[in-house]
Parts: sequence; structure tokens; C-alpha cells
Amino acid sequence: MSQILSPLKRPVLAFLTDFGSTDSYVSIMKGVVLTIAADTHLVDITHDVPPQHIATGAWHLATCYRYFPAGTIFVCVVDPGVGSPRHPIALRAGDWFFVGPDNGLFTYILAEQSVHEAVILANPTYHLANVSTTFHGRDVFSPVAAHIARGIPLSEFGPPIDTATLHRLDTGLSVRQGAEIAGHIVHTDHFGNLITSIPFSQVPDLFTCAAIRLTLPTQGITITERRPFFAAFSTQDTASPFLYIGSSGYVAVAIQNGNAAQSLNVTYGDSVTLALIEK
Amino acid sequence: MSQILSPLKRPVLAFLTDFGSTDSYVSIMKGVVLTIAADTHLVDITHDVPPQHIATGAWHLATCYRYFPAGTIFVCVVDPGVGSPRHPIALRAGDWFFVGPDNGLFTYILAEQSVHEAVILANPTYHLANVSTTFHGRDVFSPVAAHIARGIPLSEFGPPIDTATLHRLDTGLSVRQGAEIAGHIVHTDHFGNLITSIPFSQVPDLFTCAAIRLTLPTQGITITERRPFFAAFSTQDTASPFLYIGSSGYVAVAIQNGNAAQSLNVTYGDSVTLALIEK
Amino acid sequence: MSQILSPLKRPVLAFLTDFGSTDSYVSIMKGVVLTIAADTHLVDITHDVPPQHIATGAWHLATCYRYFPAGTIFVCVVDPGVGSPRHPIALRAGDWFFVGPDNGLFTYILAEQSVHEAVILANPTYHLANVSTTFHGRDVFSPVAAHIARGIPLSEFGPPIDTATLHRLDTGLSVRQGAEIAGHIVHTDHFGNLITSIPFSQVPDLFTCAAIRLTLPTQGITITERRPFFAAFSTQDTASPFLYIGSSGYVAVAIQNGNAAQSLNVTYGDSVTLALIEK
Repeated sequence: MSQILSPLKRPVLAFLTDFGSTDSYVSIMKGVVLTIAADTHLVDITHDVPPQHIATGAWHLATCYRYFPAGTIFVCVVDPGVGSPRHPIALRAGDWFFVGPDNGLFTYILAEQSVHEAVILANPTYHLANVSTTFHGRDVFSPVAAHIARGIPLSEFGPPIDTATLHRLDTGLSVRQGAEIAGHIVHTDHFGNLITSIPFSQVPDLFTCAAIRLTLPTQGITITERRPFFAAFSTQDTASPFLYIGSSGYVAVAIQNGNAAQSLNVTYGDSVTLALIEK
Repeated sequence: MSQILSPLKRPVLAFLTDFGSTDSYVSIMKGVVLTIAADTHLVDITHDVPPQHIATGAWHLATCYRYFPAGTIFVCVVDPGVGSPRHPIALRAGDWFFVGPDNGLFTYILAEQSVHEAVILANPTYHLANVSTTFHGRDVFSPVAAHIARGIPLSEFGPPIDTATLHRLDTGLSVRQGAEIAGHIVHTDHFGNLITSIPFSQVPDLFTCAAIRLTLPTQGITITERRPFFAAFSTQDTASPFLYIGSSGYVAVAIQNGNAAQSLNVTYGDSVTLALIEK
Repeated sequence: MSQILSPLKRPVLAFLTDFGSTDSYVSIMKGVVLTIAADTHLVDITHDVPPQHIATGAWHLATCYRYFPAGTIFVCVVDPGVGSPRHPIALRAGDWFFVGPDNGLFTYILAEQSVHEAVILANPTYHLANVSTTFHGRDVFSPVAAHIARGIPLSEFGPPIDTATLHRLDTGLSVRQGAEIAGHIVHTDHFGNLITSIPFSQVPDLFTCAAIRLTLPTQGITITERRPFFAAFSTQDTASPFLYIGSSGYVAVAIQNGNAAQSLNVTYGDSVTLALIEK
């Protein structure tokens, strides 16, 4: 698993932050990268992670990284601890590089991929000349990512760190007991679709049982569906919420041409219970 | 009209969706493209089409495509029918390529350009390995667009489709009878400017007649202007709404340094009547 | 100071507008650029400058331009005077190029950098064929910027203009009298942090005095901090507002993991007074 992963000929840097799009902050990071590594592809994942909400940032990264070319460098900055002793780190994991604070942003990466190399970004040679206490995205993470794009090996950036010690969020993946699965809402997307913490791999019998029942206890809502289940968004003809497998591979709830999060008044973290009914 | 249109040396892919910018969906499409066709330019048209609002997506595409280089590949995903039998298609029309669902998104392209080639995206060779029922932007449209960028001819992607059968929206272009034109609001832009369905080509006498009168019957509002008409935004010195020719070539209504849509309480689809007064 | 500044091998164009992201306007500018200069890097600074708010556009440009590579071409369009006699201009200042209306957008550039060359964009050879009165971003500024990227010297675009006559905003930088500094709020950022018009260079004794007191007279709020002052965001453990030096180099006010602008009800232009207390 320790193959050498070279950056791409024309490296891709993908940015994930909670900086929003109304300020110049994201562009400053890109300016820093282009000054060091001119011939790069810069892609935005999203900059609308709710301020300081590390779990949502981790989730977004988890949903997209597999679709990027091998060698892509992810620059991830949701960093309420900027200026504190939390470590700035870089990882080579799976086929990709990841740069950002060690605060749980890489929880899913650590769970899903082999980590070939992990270092603390302690070498000031690869930082901007004056490192602020407020904007490591500009002063540390972007210049390091740009130097990775230029082919500098991770070991140059600082000492290795034991991956077992890296910060992991309690992602609260769902628990199945028999035909009952307890989980929670991990994301409500732009369409108002509710993505749960229940992966399809945990409920392979979801669409072969006789009926499914999803309960949102906080809202006092129960959604029951009987066979035959829907095939696609377009086949739903009512305003009732229905279950489907989201594009990220998790059980999700939607309302055809509607906004389930608003209609059902559901938000991040709310509990869900799923029951698979056999008769 | 069947000249061979080669993709650009460094092809441009332009993305238009209703995915918003808070999720990772758009970046997933870009990751897929860069994995297949590394040396491309990726440009965002907008991702803020109101969810499932095909007509607004079609309008935005219509306003911008002519300004892109010949060979640009437009990836357009406003797709409430994803997973239904609606066809995924690719077109070579005018000097450009267009990829997306056959649901009316390409209405203006079909009306304005010669279609040299139109195919159904039936060949799974050019899709991702597992095509979901919820995210064809990722699984079908992006990989096909990337392969077009690599020079794969459209005929490889699937069988031709008769362009006469392609889905067209009723765009409701305005109707002129004598000096009266009946139309509607096709867009309210970021500045609150109201763009009507009345093209300047239909009212070449707009600024040479003695006066113009625009009526918004729903709002009970009449806007009258007499000669001399305004020359530019900057010459308006009152808060009154005034008519101008929008940058897209359609009659529009604005309030100098104000927001006409909010002030007049006008929204998409509202009726407008324009009268040109000669004396 | 008149060294020849060549555009980059792969030139960077950075866009700053008040066009928002819901329309196709920004993409039209990029399409125009790519038609003229294919091999360029296109970076967004922000398109969410409040409509027609030149001062905020000028501020955002001031905060970011130094971080871009030498030779970057900034295309800046906050242009309430489009169609009026205000001049469209291009500047070569410091290590960069700037293109946009002469309405104060370049106030900070003119104050901070040597201007090597300044011209009025009068030569229609480098504009689109039909220049509208409403969208010079598309018709004038983008094609000129693309031609700069191709290496056309500024003198080709039109006659020189005396830099002393260029429009400057009253940026209202703060005034220090003894230990009292009077300023105002120049920006409230995405996190709700309040950036003042007081540069750190004006208050080098800020963190060595015994205490600091910031007053927001409109709100009737006084914030007092005594030594030892905070070291970083992460060291604050209360919900009280505190002072820090923003990443742009100006005194700023934040609430740890909170939104100071909302909590304190402060907005652009509000007055601030800072007192440095020695005992």
C-alpha cells in the first residue's frame, strides 16, 4: 500500500471551506497557490459549510473525493481552532492528498482509506513568510498544497504523525438490531432531501422486504411505504415523502418536486429510526 | 451545415444546473470530467436555477451560449425526470455541443441553431460503471461530456434521434398586433431587473415612437415614458421604473440603483403588455 | 518603476463583480475571454459585492490582489455608471493589471501601488463588435483583459490618462489623535466579523498597552479588554466580543464561534472609536 503517488501532470487542487463566497478569502488561497504552482486545476467543492461546522465539512469531503482523479490534492479549511495547538497536517491516503487542520475533517478518509503517510506541517520553509493566527488557509495550507502539486514529498513538510492519534469525529453511523436501524440526519441538501446515517450496505434488504417504516421521533412523523417501491424520483406522483438511496449511498428521504427538510421541519442531527417489515 | 466541429485543443466545458453551491454535487461532476479528460477548462454558468425549473435553465443557457468559443461543451442538468424514460441526449448544434436530458432545456438552442447531430446516450461504455436513478449528471452527462472533449464522435454514444421529436417548452414568445405586444416576464435577475419575452427585433420602433406604455396587469401598474428616452442606466435620476433593452436583447424594466422586481412585486411568468404610441 | 510587466505564460484573470451567481452574466464574461485567450486561468474573487456598492468592491480587491501572481489581470465590474461618460480604463500598477470603470474601484490600488501606465479604453478594435449601454463587463472589459493576456500593450487600447485625475473614493481611513483613534466599519465578513478602517500600522502599541476600549456609538456598546490579550480565536472561551488583527491587517472584532455583526447589530459604515489605555 505504499506505492508512490505522484501528483498529476496538471495537478488538481480541490477546495472545501466554510468561508462563503461573499468575501475574497477563497480567492486569496487560489492566488497563493497560483503564485507557487501556476499550472494547476482549481476546483471548488463548496465554501458554504456552515461556519465552524466540522462534521458537515467532513461529510461533504466524504461524498466527493472518490470521484476525483488520483493525485488530487484536497485543501480543507473548516478551522475553528486556528491559532490553537491543533496540528496542521497533510495526508497521503488512498489515491489522494489531503491538507488541513487535524480536527476531524478527515474522519471519513481515515475510516475508508489506507493512510500511506501523515505529517505535521511544521516546516516554515513551505509556509508564507508571516503566518497569522487567523488564516492558516492562506498562510499554511494553500502554500503546502501548492508545493505538493510541484512534487515536494510530504516528508519535507514536517515530522510524521501516528495516524492512530489523528482526531476523529464520532460520526454516529447507524446501528442495526434485527430489522430496526437507529440513525440520524447527516445532511439536508440543496433540494431539501434528508440524508440519513444509514448506509445501503447496512440494509441490503431495504427494497425486498414487504414494507419499510421510517420514524422521525422529534417531529412525531412516520413514513410507511409498501411494495412495490418507487423506481425513481419521476415515478412519484404524490406529495408524500418517500425513501430512496441517495447518490452518496445512504438512505435518504425526499418529496417529489418538494422540499422535505422544510415540509417535515427536519434538520441536521435529528434522530431517525428505520424498520424493515417482512410480512 | 454538416461541417465537422472539432472540440477545442483545451476544451471548455460549461456547467448549468439547479444543484446550488452548498453541496458537493457540482464538484463531483467536475471530478468525473477531470478523471476522463484532464486538460479541460471548467466554467460555471450558474447552479442556482430554481430547483427543477427547466424554463429558467433553458433561458440562462440561451443568454450565454453564443459568447463561448466554438467547440464548447455545455453540460446542462435541470432534471426532475431523472430515472424516468426521458432520454439523455447529446447535440451538436451551431458551433457547440450540448449534453443533458431531453426535457426542454435545449428549447432555445433548437429554435436558434442548426442541429447537425443528435443522439440518445444509450451506450453504457461511456457512462460510469453503476448508473444511479438519481444522479445522471454524475453517471451519464459528465462522463459523456468528457469523452466528447477527448474527441469521441457523437455517433459512438448511441443511436441518432430525430430532432423533430425533441422536447420543446412553450417559451411563450410575445405576440405583436399592430402597436400592441403581449408577453410575459421570463426572468428577474440578480439586480431585480425584469426581463420580458419581447425581443428588440419585434419592436424596432421602440425608441423612435413618441411614447411607450408598459402595463403589468397583475400588479395594476402602468409605466409610461415619453421622448426623449433614457440613454443609459446612469442617466436616470428618479426612482421611477424605466424600459431598456437588456443585454440579452429583450425589452427589460429596471429602477436606477433599485430593485424593480421587489418594488413592483413582479415575478417569473407575470403578464406584460407593451404599447407603442405614435403621437 | 517602468519595468516591462509581461503577462504570465498562462495568464491569470481574476474577476470581481456585483453580478451575483444566479444569472449567466459572469459566465458570459468568461466565454468572451476564452474565445480570445484560450489558455488562461480564470479565478473568481467574489460576485457578491452588494449591487452598485463600489466601496465594498474596492475593499475586496484591496484585500486580495497582493496574493496573486505578478502579471495577473484583475477584471473588476461594479459599475452603476455603465453607459455614462465615466471612463473605462486599464492600469498597470505594481506587478499587476487592472481593468474596469474609473469610478473609485481602484482607490486602494492607486494609494498603495506605483501606476506605471493608465489608459482609457477608447479603441473599439479590442471591444466586441456591438457595445451595449448596459454590459461593458461583456463588451469592453472582458475582451480588453483577454487581449492583455495575449500580450497586447496597454497603449494599444487607447490614450493615456493622467493618474492624478483618476477617481478615488473617500476611504475614510481612521484618524489617530494621541491614544484615541476614530474610524468606521469597512466590512462585515461571512463569519460576521467586523473589520474596521484602523490599520495595525496605526496602532503598533495595540497589544502592549494595559487595556483597549472599543466603542460603537450607534449601538451604545463598549468593549474593554485588559492584558493579557487573547492569542487566537481558539483561546477565547466566552461569548464576549474581542479585538484581533484581521487577515487583511486591520483591527477587527469577533465573537468566538459567533456572529458579531448580528449579535451587536453592526453594519457597513458604522462609527468606531478605539482608545489605548496605558495604566
